[in-house]
Amino acid sequence: MCKKIGILGGMGPLATADLFRKIILLTDAKSDQEHIHILIDNNTSIPDRTAHLIAKGTDPRKQLIASARRLENMGADFLIMPCNTAHNFYEDIIKEINIPFLNMIDETAKFISQKYAGKKIGLLATEGTCQTGVYDQAIHKYGMELVKPTKTQKNVTNFIYDIKAGKNISLDGFNKSVEELKDQGAEVFILGCTELSVGYEMFKMEGNYVDPLKVIAIRSIHFAGKKALKSL
Amino acid sequence: MCKKIGILGGMGPLATADLFRKIILLTDAKSDQEHIHILIDNNTSIPDRTAHLIAKGTDPRKQLIASARRLENMGADFLIMPCNTAHNFYEDIIKEINIPFLNMIDETAKFISQKYAGKKIGLLATEGTCQTGVYDQAIHKYGMELVKPTKTQKNVTNFIYDIKAGKNISLDGFNKSVEELKDQGAEVFILGCTELSVGYEMFKMEGNYVDPLKVIAIRSIHFAGKKALKSL
Repeated sequence: MCKKIGILGGMGPLATADLFRKIILLTDAKSDQEHIHILIDNNTSIPDRTAHLIAKGTDPRKQLIASARRLENMGADFLIMPCNTAHNFYEDIIKEINIPFLNMIDETAKFISQKYAGKKIGLLATEGTCQTGVYDQAIHKYGMELVKPTKTQKNVTNFIYDIKAGKNISLDGFNKSVEELKDQGAEVFILGCTELSVGYEMFKMEGNYVDPLKVIAIRSIHFAGKKALKSL
Repeated sequence: MCKKIGILGGMGPLATADLFRKIILLTDAKSDQEHIHILIDNNTSIPDRTAHLIAKGTDPRKQLIASARRLENMGADFLIMPCNTAHNFYEDIIKEINIPFLNMIDETAKFISQKYAGKKIGLLATEGTCQTGVYDQAIHKYGMELVKPTKTQKNVTNFIYDIKAGKNISLDGFNKSVEELKDQGAEVFILGCTELSVGYEMFKMEGNYVDPLKVIAIRSIHFAGKKALKSL
């Protein structure tokens, strides 16, 4: 009997739908019944995470915890959460539930430490995710070094918001940020925002990019007790 | 305050993910918080509907009712179900819950009666959906005529199961069934199986195809109290 996955979603809704779809497409299943039972709370009442972290907006923890409990009550055997920034509140959530919660940031760092040992890592993400240091902590835990854009962070932010808005999307500025990270010695690049995962597929980007949504999709398939069609 | 949608899903998982994505893309929202709160039970333990209807397989009603109740208990204000065949059990489900349940088949028939009055309708669906007459009843209720493939039903069934399995997918056989319906006088074609909705997008099919998943996506956005970006 395979475990039920609970997806704490809504941050944003499209990233939630994207992760759901990734899990289905990556599961080794020949019929509906061989797929994984997944419960989703696409909770759009969760206040903006970045607004709280860098500008004292409404605290999202009450809604995050409410969703986590709701999924546990619905019968989820473990949780995942397709939002990088919201992982800042991971410790606050796990205190309130009695089921495991796979940490997307930590799983991504662990995967990188296994596949790219000794290499310097570059982070591509929103200013919110960069400033709060959620990826720094995870990467340092595995003894690796993380660098971020300094002069060209704005390019990444603009690329992310262009994808959110669905217009004027061009790789030019984004590629300059990748170049800046390479100048700092980075050889592997984390797509540390769910919109970048979308951009990665949109432009069929090639190189040492690590997509945390793909990492957590495959890890959750294994954790649920099923085979994945691709390895990490 | 907009209503919470409960999606009784898992039949199949990709159709569930597709409906979820359609609702998000069709909702008039500028931020995560403006989107609709959606609860999803992607219940892959629901036995095959067609197998029960035409070959005395395990009765799916117990699992369908369990999912409907679970969604109601978690706070869903109304239900939708992205599976045509499972609508055979609609009456059995509504008896067991205390929230509205928008009927995808009936909404589709109503929409067709408004947009394509006087035209003959062709049904593309599983043998289960065809034989049980769930679309016949709905279409006849609005005074229209429905035809189904007789010689080429197997082609539609194979196309559906190839999409479920994610392999060997080709339009050739499917197109022969559409031709057979045209020979019977049909001018409008119901994609009466959620895998066909998936195939419709996959192959960017053109013509008078009516996608019940799109109909229920837009109807549920309105019922939830939000504006849709497209009309039916």
